[in-house]
Amino acid sequence: MTLYTYFRSSAAYRVRIVLALKGLAWQPSVVHMLRDGGEQHRPEYRAVNPLGLVPTLVDGDAVLVQSTAICEYLEETHPEPPLLPRDSVARAYVRAVMATIACEIHPLDNLRVLHYVTKTLGHDEDEKLAWYRHWVAVGFAGLEALMTKAGRTGRYVHGDTPTLADAFLVPQVFNARRFQCPLDAFPTIVRVADTAAAHPAIASARPDAQVDAA
Amino acid sequence: MTLYTYFRSSAAYRVRIVLALKGLAWQPSVVHMLRDGGEQHRPEYRAVNPLGLVPTLVDGDAVLVQSTAICEYLEETHPEPPLLPRDSVARAYVRAVMATIACEIHPLDNLRVLHYVTKTLGHDEDEKLAWYRHWVAVGFAGLEALMTKAGRTGRYVHGDTPTLADAFLVPQVFNARRFQCPLDAFPTIVRVADTAAAHPAIASARPDAQVDAA
Repeated sequence: MTLYTYFRSSAAYRVRIVLALKGLAWQPSVVHMLRDGGEQHRPEYRAVNPLGLVPTLVDGDAVLVQSTAICEYLEETHPEPPLLPRDSVARAYVRAVMATIACEIHPLDNLRVLHYVTKTLGHDEDEKLAWYRHWVAVGFAGLEALMTKAGRTGRYVHGDTPTLADAFLVPQVFNARRFQCPLDAFPTIVRVADTAAAHPAIASARPDAQVDAA
Repeated sequence: MTLYTYFRSSAAYRVRIVLALKGLAWQPSVVHMLRDGGEQHRPEYRAVNPLGLVPTLVDGDAVLVQSTAICEYLEETHPEPPLLPRDSVARAYVRAVMATIACEIHPLDNLRVLHYVTKTLGHDEDEKLAWYRHWVAVGFAGLEALMTKAGRTGRYVHGDTPTLADAFLVPQVFNARRFQCPLDAFPTIVRVADTAAAHPAIASARPDAQVDAA
């Protein structure tokens, strides 16, 4: 398999974690998201991924886009070890954690949105950082409450083994720390994300462990 | 089943479509998202859905949040009629369409983000509308290209029967029209969404057909 990846892409990081947890071999094809205005916008890359977003996973003839769809695909095509629980209600909890990160936090803090806030709306670096931290704070407050109420966490988001939700949570916490977001109010999130980040397969997916890391 | 819903909530609209396509009976519990600063923020509602977001589906003892997770849950627990294809690559395509809407477009144009743009960042109505339309234009451009390249559309997003992707596309196109976003550049999206919107079950989920419609 070939993964079009960028070391700092949070969505690529999720897929790298799932590939590592499944023990699947892959080749990186690096898409430098900051060089020349972003290599993800190049016609050559858009011919692969029409969304112009990272990551893309190529598995034989199949070209897969959107990290959520890619992770579900890997779970279906490589069911061992399972990264979703068996029970449908528990699966819905794991997917709700994934969606809270993928639909409520990350979309507001990705590169193109931060560009619009500064370049088009004319805000400065402090206002950009306040925007970034605001959506992490709002999203994590909901997520902390969701995880606490569900009562399904063990060492990981669900029980004592990693699921797809950990693959989404670890990159989001990594990014939150990179932008110095206060995390004291989210002890469950931090506890689980730190446990998961220390898992050898998950650790291998870290940005600084990638070939394209600075 | 009880669905905590608001007629104009795009995420609730998705779930209403899936419930209708599955032929499942449900009771509405209306959460008025504009009254009193938003009933979704009330402690009584947060006790049900700690994210403070609409919708929530209550199915017996199970309390389900996040529309993507709810739709996957309904597909697993009520497999007929199937709303995902059988083949994993085709399922990944359907989920990629869902994620493009749920992760790239809708999160940027929902109520709380528009509030931040106007109230916190101090932009006027024209700048708010420009923001709204920008993210629809960017998202739909990618989606149109994705659907065209995949070559999997028939009358619907995938083939000639509705899938979960149609349940996500119809509300997004409905909202785009409500905010007068130009759609001429997206003929595949418009064709498919209009076909899907005319499906009797999907039509029954329309905002103006709900008990809480103004």
